[in-house]
Amino acid sequence: MSDVKNVVIIGSGPAGHTAAIYAARANLSPFMFEGYVMGGSAGGQLTTTTDVENYPGFPDGVEGPELMQLFRKQSERFGTEMVGEDVNEVDFSSRPFKVKSDNREVLAHSIIISTGATARRMGVPNEEKMWNNGMSACAVCDGALPMFRNQPLMVIGGGDTAVEEATYLTKFGSKVYMVHRRDELRASKIMQERAFKTPKLEIVWDTALEDAVGQDYVTGAKIKNLKTNEVKEVEVAGIFYAIGHTPNTSVFKGQVDLDATGYIKVKPGTQETSVEGVFAAGDVHDHKYRQAVTAAGTGCAAALEAERWLAEKSIG
Amino acid sequence: MSDVKNVVIIGSGPAGHTAAIYAARANLSPFMFEGYVMGGSAGGQLTTTTDVENYPGFPDGVEGPELMQLFRKQSERFGTEMVGEDVNEVDFSSRPFKVKSDNREVLAHSIIISTGATARRMGVPNEEKMWNNGMSACAVCDGALPMFRNQPLMVIGGGDTAVEEATYLTKFGSKVYMVHRRDELRASKIMQERAFKTPKLEIVWDTALEDAVGQDYVTGAKIKNLKTNEVKEVEVAGIFYAIGHTPNTSVFKGQVDLDATGYIKVKPGTQETSVEGVFAAGDVHDHKYRQAVTAAGTGCAAALEAERWLAEKSIG
Repeated sequence: MSDVKNVVIIGSGPAGHTAAIYAARANLSPFMFEGYVMGGSAGGQLTTTTDVENYPGFPDGVEGPELMQLFRKQSERFGTEMVGEDVNEVDFSSRPFKVKSDNREVLAHSIIISTGATARRMGVPNEEKMWNNGMSACAVCDGALPMFRNQPLMVIGGGDTAVEEATYLTKFGSKVYMVHRRDELRASKIMQERAFKTPKLEIVWDTALEDAVGQDYVTGAKIKNLKTNEVKEVEVAGIFYAIGHTPNTSVFKGQVDLDATGYIKVKPGTQETSVEGVFAAGDVHDHKYRQAVTAAGTGCAAALEAERWLAEKSIG
Repeated sequence: MSDVKNVVIIGSGPAGHTAAIYAARANLSPFMFEGYVMGGSAGGQLTTTTDVENYPGFPDGVEGPELMQLFRKQSERFGTEMVGEDVNEVDFSSRPFKVKSDNREVLAHSIIISTGATARRMGVPNEEKMWNNGMSACAVCDGALPMFRNQPLMVIGGGDTAVEEATYLTKFGSKVYMVHRRDELRASKIMQERAFKTPKLEIVWDTALEDAVGQDYVTGAKIKNLKTNEVKEVEVAGIFYAIGHTPNTSVFKGQVDLDATGYIKVKPGTQETSVEGVFAAGDVHDHKYRQAVTAAGTGCAAALEAERWLAEKSIG
């Protein structure tokens, strides 16, 4: 079965490309479905990020799309075969595994799933225009940018992540509004306590974001009280969504075990999924760290595990 | 207690500097003991590596020391305070934690241990005397010395590193013996292929080093065939160990839980050690992947965990 690929990598963010670099250097001739629309686009969430200042090795920062191009060039250099197609269907119930796009069906001895997650957005009218110009879905990535220093900021959401991000932003902003549509937080008790006692953090209850305000970048937020229907404008330099992420796993439902929120489950201390020979890396299994460098690290780990697993089976 | 640091990072490889970048960007003003002699030198094992081709983001490769300089520059840029001193003693039994070098004692609310691992030696009779007089654990550091030029050389080991170092040494020596105690290599496929096709590289199977031979410097190696028990002397000017690593954890014994081989134990799925507020990252807790990018990933994770832990405790 010489037309069976050793490793098929699904997804092309930092996890996917790092897996490809390691798999290619292990002479496994990896095949990658880069994706097209699933998860935003090929290249993952970094392609929708401007300045990346926390990926180690780039002391002066690097643009997200540029970093993704570097990753891609590196996996290409070592011989990764790539197609810019979304995977529509997989069959992990028999071996070799089957992976299908609109254009092809590929057979695979092993699989690395790195389709990432998508930050939820609200779709307010100015969102597209203001994205990266004061609107963001990642406080840890963007909070330290000069544009937010000593400015009033706003976080949308009421869960643990929202509290975490709002607390984080109080280090930089002059004040942080946490806008939540209910009159109580969904956050855990410990996180709620934290929210209540954090100076500079003000929770705005029963309220939803109507729109971002500004010319070239965010200068305010239009918010609506859902009980009184009162709409008002608040001066802020940043609006941060913290309304959750959706892992891009719809195509894997029923094929590998997912947790209650749809993330792929891996065995602790490994990148192994519930199906032997199928590995996961990056945000598709990680709702805790979600950084480019953590995704890259697990991509490397997944490739090393796949390589060792194939070697054990005398494949590849 | 304004003189208590929020985060003290011990070690300055990819894990330590990535932790520093994240901690600094979270406004935690991290303090780093870069180390001096422990673990080789500040900067970790990368500083003794030439071409790094698998760190994602550098499609044309990068020199190890150059990559470490980039990491260091990045943590410096965000305000990490660094001292080039080894830690001699720690006390994690009471809070704040205490971290001591020859020159200072630093108090810390949280700790990130990233002291890495050190190349192993065999302890043959003449080793101490011949160390740096023809014996080395780092071909990349020492291989280019005039004493080794156009001389026969020897590498001990059969893993990836052994192949890497032996290949490297063929640039300088007239011939390189790779002495391995088994009849097959532990090295990965790509490395094995490289070993088999490298001119001037000869693998000596089923054989162990008995001793180094020489007066003031190495002139030969006594080796023993483990199947026939035959001992013979081979003329070589250099003997290079490539037989694995020991985690740099002696200073942490009795302070955090270590596994049987001395690696720091972390709770699965976290970077938490047995002491709350003390985290580990990189090769000091990882004997499985040991790559720059996996170390960096866990450094990031450790910093995010430290940040969240401090926030819970309302510190920092």
